[in-house]
Amino acid sequence: MKELIYLDYNATTPVLESIARQIAVYLTEQFGNPSSGHPLGRAARQAVELARDKVAELLSCDRSEIVFTSGGTEANNQAIRGIAAARDDRKKIITSVIEHPATIRPCEALEAWGWTVDRLPVDGDGVVDVDRLIDRLDESTALVTVMHANNETGTIQPIARIAEAAHRVGAMVHCDAAQSVGKIPTRVDELGVDLLSVAGHKFYAPKGIGALYVRRGTELAPLMAGAGHEGGRRPGTENVPGIVGFGEACALAIESMGTEMGRVGALRDDLWRRLKTEIPQAKLNGHPVDRLPNTLNLSFPDISGSAVLARADGLAASTGAACHEGGTEIPSAVLVAMGIPAAVALGSVRLSLGRSSTSAQIEAAAEMLINAYRRAIADISIHD
Amino acid sequence: MKELIYLDYNATTPVLESIARQIAVYLTEQFGNPSSGHPLGRAARQAVELARDKVAELLSCDRSEIVFTSGGTEANNQAIRGIAAARDDRKKIITSVIEHPATIRPCEALEAWGWTVDRLPVDGDGVVDVDRLIDRLDESTALVTVMHANNETGTIQPIARIAEAAHRVGAMVHCDAAQSVGKIPTRVDELGVDLLSVAGHKFYAPKGIGALYVRRGTELAPLMAGAGHEGGRRPGTENVPGIVGFGEACALAIESMGTEMGRVGALRDDLWRRLKTEIPQAKLNGHPVDRLPNTLNLSFPDISGSAVLARADGLAASTGAACHEGGTEIPSAVLVAMGIPAAVALGSVRLSLGRSSTSAQIEAAAEMLINAYRRAIADISIHD
Repeated sequence: MKELIYLDYNATTPVLESIARQIAVYLTEQFGNPSSGHPLGRAARQAVELARDKVAELLSCDRSEIVFTSGGTEANNQAIRGIAAARDDRKKIITSVIEHPATIRPCEALEAWGWTVDRLPVDGDGVVDVDRLIDRLDESTALVTVMHANNETGTIQPIARIAEAAHRVGAMVHCDAAQSVGKIPTRVDELGVDLLSVAGHKFYAPKGIGALYVRRGTELAPLMAGAGHEGGRRPGTENVPGIVGFGEACALAIESMGTEMGRVGALRDDLWRRLKTEIPQAKLNGHPVDRLPNTLNLSFPDISGSAVLARADGLAASTGAACHEGGTEIPSAVLVAMGIPAAVALGSVRLSLGRSSTSAQIEAAAEMLINAYRRAIADISIHD
Repeated sequence: MKELIYLDYNATTPVLESIARQIAVYLTEQFGNPSSGHPLGRAARQAVELARDKVAELLSCDRSEIVFTSGGTEANNQAIRGIAAARDDRKKIITSVIEHPATIRPCEALEAWGWTVDRLPVDGDGVVDVDRLIDRLDESTALVTVMHANNETGTIQPIARIAEAAHRVGAMVHCDAAQSVGKIPTRVDELGVDLLSVAGHKFYAPKGIGALYVRRGTELAPLMAGAGHEGGRRPGTENVPGIVGFGEACALAIESMGTEMGRVGALRDDLWRRLKTEIPQAKLNGHPVDRLPNTLNLSFPDISGSAVLARADGLAASTGAACHEGGTEIPSAVLVAMGIPAAVALGSVRLSLGRSSTSAQIEAAAEMLINAYRRAIADISIHD
């Protein structure tokens, strides 16, 4: 395969070689079942608990508040259904119009079972309307679930204000932080949430592992039933190699998130500057400032994003979220919800940077995209 | 850590070095999201589908009938809850008294929601009573769920007869095959089941990956809601490295299960012969013939199994299922259900062999256990 420039870190990330080597140890040598009482079991248990400490440190919570899951989707399902089952004296959930399907669909399922689901609108930058939230919150609200950073635009939501308002009426607060953990500070004490979902593979941990933060004292019905793993909150033999990789990815984030944010943010801004200079009608989608430092969502004028990417075959990027691929000519629901006209939304491309992104790559990517855009426009003119 | 003789393969298994290396490739280089349209995404998709073919080949079903899950517990929860949600015109489940908690607990949850749960007894060898099943089956039965091979004794259940009887009244059949897949032929066409759970880490795949076989046309409500992965049956970014390892473990089983069954079975029988010769009152638990070839569950006389294992510290084994550890002085519910007196059940030890077991290890393990047993008896006499 020809060397690709990977600008799709919001879809998924690689595991670093050094972390992959540690994972391999827990696949082959230290392969014990953490529930076993013999030395191999105890070593596995110790590794799981050490990783839990690192996750707790990254999220700024107590180790007892971390429940390992198979990923972000399970964490969201557990949070939303778990609260719904534990609090069915209240029958309303408030969410937003820009959530991931792993939030949208569990909310729809509750709606089908008779719950009221209120969906908050967003402004032109993709920010949830907190005044509208305050207006809709009442004593019947069981849960408010809003994502921390949007996967397509990177726009960061005012979670602390949302949580404060929700708590005033006794509602619980869940935050899908799949796209923010490891990229920007995501401290549950500052955000003030009761539940927070983490997806390992979005920040250099393996696929198939994630976590749900559950504030101490939160009543939550388990999504699955079985043996008493994870303090009775999540049954099934622990994914020890995945958990070890997850812990190491958290340690990496603790160590270098500060410098990476600055480095990647500068590269991202440079990429935008290069594109905007050559294609002045290009439009930035998302909040200009309150946005993940690695994410650039832009609309090319008068052409679809997929037509541009199809002509930039040395570049791995996306027209939207990976989970929505296959319907590339349907405008992004997130962008449409922001009031962006369908024709402009169709021109969008999501470029998301990460640890391996370099200035040479960004320069090359900008050139590829500019050329691809020009060829795409020319191809269309010829066919007209 | 001192070199252990590992006889706890029913708790979990190591991943072979060669498979771990393939897994590492999908952690680091081929790290794409299978939902992404670019070459890295397509390579990941291809790896997932290749693995699906291998799972389908091992289970003798169509690739479209395999749904990847996070493990056996999720597969069982998905099967039991999924059928219950899809068929709530029938409100009865029939199961057995010797199931794993990952079956027991979902059934108990349904019971709490008003379902009738019938639990079939077993005979002295741990075999489910099929006549009793036939007696209890009726038009109100939605699902029969019985495990293929018991995790503690290895006793194999008459699944084909169970399935035939259940289908006569229109009930669906689920089989928890966590302990049998990879150890003995587990062909869904021969077993005649509608749903079958597989746990990767029980047969040399990583922890955190499993599958549910879902017979074509089976109506099943998804356990989780989200994006449309796995044909809309299981949302969440696919655990690509885990799935690759799972596929390779299936290929390994296809290739060598036949010879391994004979080799491991001979070692297991040799171990039992050695123990029985020196400790004639030792008792075999489980079916003498219809049993997993790798599993030896025996009761030492007049002493607890944990007292013996505590004195055999070069040996990694278990007094029962790993998932139930922590209550070592509670007699195994599986053995008690077989009519074994509590005092005898307390003397039980589960020795489970695997790919790395050698005749030298078996010889050494037998000696360790015999010595440990004698020391334990002597220690008790001294304390009396």
